[in-house]
Amino acid sequence: MQRRIDLNCDMGEGFGAWRMGDDAGVMPWITSANIACGFHAGDSATMAATVALARSHDVAIGAHVGLPDLAGFGRREMAIDAAQAHAWTLHQLGALSAFALAAGTRLRHLKPHGALYHMVARDTALAVAMVEAVRTFDAGLCVFGAGASALATACAHSRIAFAAEAFADRRYGADGRLVPRTQPDAVIERVDEGVAQALALIGTATPSARVDTLCLHGDRDDAAAFARALREALDSVGVEVVAPDRATS
Amino acid sequence: MQRRIDLNCDMGEGFGAWRMGDDAGVMPWITSANIACGFHAGDSATMAATVALARSHDVAIGAHVGLPDLAGFGRREMAIDAAQAHAWTLHQLGALSAFALAAGTRLRHLKPHGALYHMVARDTALAVAMVEAVRTFDAGLCVFGAGASALATACAHSRIAFAAEAFADRRYGADGRLVPRTQPDAVIERVDEGVAQALALIGTATPSARVDTLCLHGDRDDAAAFARALREALDSVGVEVVAPDRATS
Amino acid sequence: MQRRIDLNCDMGEGFGAWRMGDDAGVMPWITSANIACGFHAGDSATMAATVALARSHDVAIGAHVGLPDLAGFGRREMAIDAAQAHAWTLHQLGALSAFALAAGTRLRHLKPHGALYHMVARDTALAVAMVEAVRTFDAGLCVFGAGASALATACAHSRIAFAAEAFADRRYGADGRLVPRTQPDAVIERVDEGVAQALALIGTATPSARVDTLCLHGDRDDAAAFARALREALDSVGVEVVAPDRATS
Amino acid sequence: MQRRIDLNCDMGEGFGAWRMGDDAGVMPWITSANIACGFHAGDSATMAATVALARSHDVAIGAHVGLPDLAGFGRREMAIDAAQAHAWTLHQLGALSAFALAAGTRLRHLKPHGALYHMVARDTALAVAMVEAVRTFDAGLCVFGAGASALATACAHSRIAFAAEAFADRRYGADGRLVPRTQPDAVIERVDEGVAQALALIGTATPSARVDTLCLHGDRDDAAAFARALREALDSVGVEVVAPDRATS
Repeated sequence: MQRRIDLNCDMGEGFGAWRMGDDAGVMPWITSANIACGFHAGDSATMAATVALARSHDVAIGAHVGLPDLAGFGRREMAIDAAQAHAWTLHQLGALSAFALAAGTRLRHLKPHGALYHMVARDTALAVAMVEAVRTFDAGLCVFGAGASALATACAHSRIAFAAEAFADRRYGADGRLVPRTQPDAVIERVDEGVAQALALIGTATPSARVDTLCLHGDRDDAAAFARALREALDSVGVEVVAPDRATS
Repeated sequence: MQRRIDLNCDMGEGFGAWRMGDDAGVMPWITSANIACGFHAGDSATMAATVALARSHDVAIGAHVGLPDLAGFGRREMAIDAAQAHAWTLHQLGALSAFALAAGTRLRHLKPHGALYHMVARDTALAVAMVEAVRTFDAGLCVFGAGASALATACAHSRIAFAAEAFADRRYGADGRLVPRTQPDAVIERVDEGVAQALALIGTATPSARVDTLCLHGDRDDAAAFARALREALDSVGVEVVAPDRATS
Repeated sequence: MQRRIDLNCDMGEGFGAWRMGDDAGVMPWITSANIACGFHAGDSATMAATVALARSHDVAIGAHVGLPDLAGFGRREMAIDAAQAHAWTLHQLGALSAFALAAGTRLRHLKPHGALYHMVARDTALAVAMVEAVRTFDAGLCVFGAGASALATACAHSRIAFAAEAFADRRYGADGRLVPRTQPDAVIERVDEGVAQALALIGTATPSARVDTLCLHGDRDDAAAFARALREALDSVGVEVVAPDRATS
Repeated sequence: MQRRIDLNCDMGEGFGAWRMGDDAGVMPWITSANIACGFHAGDSATMAATVALARSHDVAIGAHVGLPDLAGFGRREMAIDAAQAHAWTLHQLGALSAFALAAGTRLRHLKPHGALYHMVARDTALAVAMVEAVRTFDAGLCVFGAGASALATACAHSRIAFAAEAFADRRYGADGRLVPRTQPDAVIERVDEGVAQALALIGTATPSARVDTLCLHGDRDDAAAFARALREALDSVGVEVVAPDRATS
């Protein structure tokens, strides 16, 4: 079993008067917060508050970069080109980074959100554009994404740190792929089952199929309890829960 | 007559497929570009292109910070509080700054736009919030605004550089105030008249009522010709046209 | 005590992935649903679903007309003119009315939302513009608003039906005015106290200070229980709970 | 040669302070105006003004229904389902129809815009959803679109009038298909060439490959001159230029 893992969760996904997710309940148990940057969710005030919350729990702050589609929560694929992926990544990195700077800290990572997550996993041009934006903005950032993806390859080519992500509460098929959300059993409902899967994912990870960060979902009804149980299980088996190192840039 | 002046112009005010202003025609003649940051105008691609254009003409780049109202172009006053002014300023500074960073440069100034320009000129709480955002984001930025305003005072208190602005092509009344846009003669249509007013404004500036930067309007039909005539007139009388120094931060 | 009253509630206030209020829990107990039309909240799918829900409970459908400010939930006053109030009212009436038509029904009323509610209560030009939009779109609609307001007067002048609104769960001062939300006791938390106030409001209404419709708030945690208790109390004292008649147009 | 044809043009494509197209110059020469409804372009005030302009020239008013993507001008394909296509069509039909009603007229047609035009031309589920929205909203509307498309088929099945569209100033290949905009010669620049093509398209139309309406582009620099030349050429050869009849509903 590997000896260290990161726990990440999507945070700051409200917009204006609308709330989503139990950020305050989950934050104490994770090590990396992926904060929405105003494109698919999040607004200026929410970004500021979420950065402050992460800071107060010493959680690493990252930009959750999405498509510019509030009404669709960034979950609808859009036909975009590499120049848009590049510009949108810069825009969101910069916006969140201002709140980090004002809070006396800085960004540690970037994670694509929703439809964009899948688009940069399979489309090399988009993945390269996103990674190029990271490189020119802050080459010390770590990029989170699906292992064995176009995004992972683009990071390797540009010598940008990459963290392979697995999901604690999503079910994996025999082929090692996520069961699609359209299937009834796509999500693991029981906390103990999710914790067991997380431990199994870590235990069976290999150097070529490693897991660097585990994603929790903050919009579960029992998100805080799930996060706590997972964190305590990892602590009890001696796995160090820690955010990826920031590359020296 | 004072010996140096900055020429600034609002730039990057398109949005998506919509264009506004003759950025390419005006940029060669100015020294500071106020670039829209996506709140009242501007989108990621426009910000990237406008930063590149400014860079290619060695024009100082600043954030044109507006209210979040694309449909109203940031010209409608909104009832907001200081926390919003603070967060919106950070958001826009950060977004534009990412494009500057990716282009190998950095921001030099901030100028409030439209309704927000007037709100921070008269409302101390909003002005202090905006200046506090500047201070924590980058204390070396210069803030542009109306002289003898709440914004000027807030900058003085926080030791943030401030540049007092006058308008080359807006008419001033006998009381020294701008003729409101609701009046028929609010805008100076003739180029020679605008140039003459600009020279007069500089010539009569005093240490207590100085003019640090002259604003041109890029949405005039003859914006490029106006900018060129003004620049050449200033050159010919030996006034150095140069962006304000960046404070050491 | 008057013998009939309408119970209205703001509905369909989600946006995209974001939810707000317990529409399904409250709908069985009310007689008029004020449905958000996409300006301050609501999107096409939410409008369609909310119209269908109202239809299934035989609840009268009205347009909850707001300022175009999703991020501010329509609660921030904006400096607008009468032409904007007119065009925005038409836009929202038309949008919601399409969903009503597709569901085999039609709109019965309009209620301004948030900041716009207060703006048309005190500003005659805006109130007249809103009522004029109602008149040309469908003169049979009933307008809900604060009694003794500019909106009430504009309706009287244009012979548009008007329903004076009071709030079941907002506290009134000795002067008969709402205690502002900035005060700690602005909202009545206890269900029995709210019900008692509602009965008192109806009982003391006079021909010159009548109450035609009582507003419930759907975003209370106990919104459904509150609505049910109020409806049952009104039924038990023999007050008919019914939507205002549609004027013949 | 067929004896009648409609001339349509996209209109009202500004947004807030941004303008697009020479609506006033083109309107006198066309018979059907496709008016943007706020999703890809257009806002309430622009819709009101464009309806008034069309009315003053006795031009038939139709809804130009697009994807909800102002920043992309509705030109980026999005992964949407039939329920969204249905709800978005209703929303836009309703919004524009309120302005028509207030101006004393009513909608005559609907035309999908941009990416949605192509999506409903090839995707049966989306086409059926759009046509179903038309049927429940106003079964007398005529739907404009590409001939021999999923949209045409869906209209035939639902007995909704359909007008097959061809483009006066877009070049067609030997296979009868539009030359893609990515090709250098996709657009016919010369007015006389566009007019000649239009006459040829009408002259070679057959009952099975008919042309009911010719589209002009209002964002050409010479849009008004082009429209006038085309109208005059059609008049001179005795082709009646007239909007499609409204079906009795």
